[in-house]
Amino acid sequence: MTDTTRVVLAQRPHGEPTDSDLVVEQATLPDPQPGQALLQTLYLSLDPYMRGRMSDAKSYAPPVEIGGTMVGATVSRVIDCPAGEFAPGDIVLGYGGWQTYSVEPTSYLRRLDPEQAPVTTALGVLGMPGMTAYAGLLEIGRPQAGETVVVAAATGPVGSAVGQIARAKGARAVGIAGGPEKVAYLRELGFDAAVDHRAPDFVEQLAAATPDGIDVYFENVGGAVFDAVFPRMNTFGRIPVCGLVSGYNATELPDGPDRVGWLMSQVLRKSLTVRGFIQSEFADRLADDFQQDMSGWIADGTVKYREDIVDGFDNVRDAFRGLLKGGNFGKLVVKIAD
Amino acid sequence: MTDTTRVVLAQRPHGEPTDSDLVVEQATLPDPQPGQALLQTLYLSLDPYMRGRMSDAKSYAPPVEIGGTMVGATVSRVIDCPAGEFAPGDIVLGYGGWQTYSVEPTSYLRRLDPEQAPVTTALGVLGMPGMTAYAGLLEIGRPQAGETVVVAAATGPVGSAVGQIARAKGARAVGIAGGPEKVAYLRELGFDAAVDHRAPDFVEQLAAATPDGIDVYFENVGGAVFDAVFPRMNTFGRIPVCGLVSGYNATELPDGPDRVGWLMSQVLRKSLTVRGFIQSEFADRLADDFQQDMSGWIADGTVKYREDIVDGFDNVRDAFRGLLKGGNFGKLVVKIAD
Repeated sequence: MTDTTRVVLAQRPHGEPTDSDLVVEQATLPDPQPGQALLQTLYLSLDPYMRGRMSDAKSYAPPVEIGGTMVGATVSRVIDCPAGEFAPGDIVLGYGGWQTYSVEPTSYLRRLDPEQAPVTTALGVLGMPGMTAYAGLLEIGRPQAGETVVVAAATGPVGSAVGQIARAKGARAVGIAGGPEKVAYLRELGFDAAVDHRAPDFVEQLAAATPDGIDVYFENVGGAVFDAVFPRMNTFGRIPVCGLVSGYNATELPDGPDRVGWLMSQVLRKSLTVRGFIQSEFADRLADDFQQDMSGWIADGTVKYREDIVDGFDNVRDAFRGLLKGGNFGKLVVKIAD
Repeated sequence: MTDTTRVVLAQRPHGEPTDSDLVVEQATLPDPQPGQALLQTLYLSLDPYMRGRMSDAKSYAPPVEIGGTMVGATVSRVIDCPAGEFAPGDIVLGYGGWQTYSVEPTSYLRRLDPEQAPVTTALGVLGMPGMTAYAGLLEIGRPQAGETVVVAAATGPVGSAVGQIARAKGARAVGIAGGPEKVAYLRELGFDAAVDHRAPDFVEQLAAATPDGIDVYFENVGGAVFDAVFPRMNTFGRIPVCGLVSGYNATELPDGPDRVGWLMSQVLRKSLTVRGFIQSEFADRLADDFQQDMSGWIADGTVKYREDIVDGFDNVRDAFRGLLKGGNFGKLVVKIAD
């Protein structure tokens, strides 16, 4: 039996998740059975979707139960695997959640080769966030050469991949990010234009960066950024919707007027496509293409990535709150152990 | 030279179009030149999209100019065609608009065969409204056998075709209409369920009629009907948006709260597709399939249609105002001459 330290959902948050919502506790794990492995967590992925799992609103995935361990992908080291599918010391992608050790079915695990790519990339550019960018942009956004693709949270793991893949497909990539440092980084990544949503002249900056309007808006933020982007959509524009992080902590609807009718009239007048998705919908069909394309793009420098690695399990909750506010810079990963 | 009586757009309406916005005037048409034909209007089609053309808001089609004749499809008789592409007495589908005579390029005209189908069907079930239903439902809605398709304004030319085509594809068709007489007619047409949006228990009726939720909502109405339908959409639901007639006369946004963020969060959580369209986008590619399928469905009784024929040019403006309020029953056509 192995002791684990973990974060459990003690109650459903109202607004920003507090330390009373997310409680750290000690627990003892059962010994792994055949078909299972005992794993030590090395890295924990933190992603905006986790805020949704804290809520019991109807969604594509069931919520975390009250008292349950917060879910999340991990890079872990195999400690014990009774049936021998993995050897002690193997590094695997798992789903142990916010805890220092876990026992997981071996069928959920994927062996990682530290020689091929840094293992943390399995949580980011070569993992779920990368697939979200790849599938949403190419299957729903379908950018054509010369078209304008706009993405917000553009220094994040999804947004940065969206912009760089758009450029690989010959489209013009415009990134939106918060603050001059992130905007400068987007230019380094090769975005054709970058706009600061915290600047007082954000709307004017966006207009200047999209002189021919917007053909694809990859939506992962919502709120004020959406309000600025949406009126600039071109006829036959596409809006893949993969997240709305700006609203995840919202506790009530904003004041009116009610713009639902206005939004629908724009959808009608401009023949827009608005399409919500989650990458798992495409994962089976596109997994091979994704791994091949994305690792090729990383190898030849077409796609660069950045990681924001926070050290220590004690910082998990603060790091997650920062993520929801756009405080991190690059793919957010918590390093739990060496 | 031939005299015509016509309705011109004297000023852009604010709200419901008044007789001061839409002014009847006499005019004299020039003689037709080679490549043109002088036509006498027999039937004028009235359709909700015409309200959009009275406004200068950005749209898929340019607005009618101030002082210009209101646009619209017509069934007309050829009076004179100098180059002989049509013979005097030929019946054609044209676009002469709201007037008793017109001079039109012959390239715009399509000869109709009164032996094959009543000529008014070229304005309805075998014309633009029928194509709107066919293309929007099959290309965007993509109903699968056993799925639930909901359509509002279901006794109208678009809605009645949507429901009947859905049934031809093996889906369950639920129609929404205003008042018991229209609801009864939907049952006659073979809709699996029919709901009265004017009934005080409309929301409960809709829930009872869609026990398995809604997979496709063909949106042509907006407003309160949308508000009732949208929360019942199933995961991976599709919403082709072809019109929002309930809001066409609206002069300002309704009071809040602002539900745009809520709508987008539903799109995300349920992986919904919301797609605006106009039938012309599909017309070239689907024209042959449409004519063949739809005339076959009419011939074998799969698709029935109903026309609401108002008599006399003097009634054009009142009939159009009634259309925007849901006052007509079936495809609205004004008979201008025998």
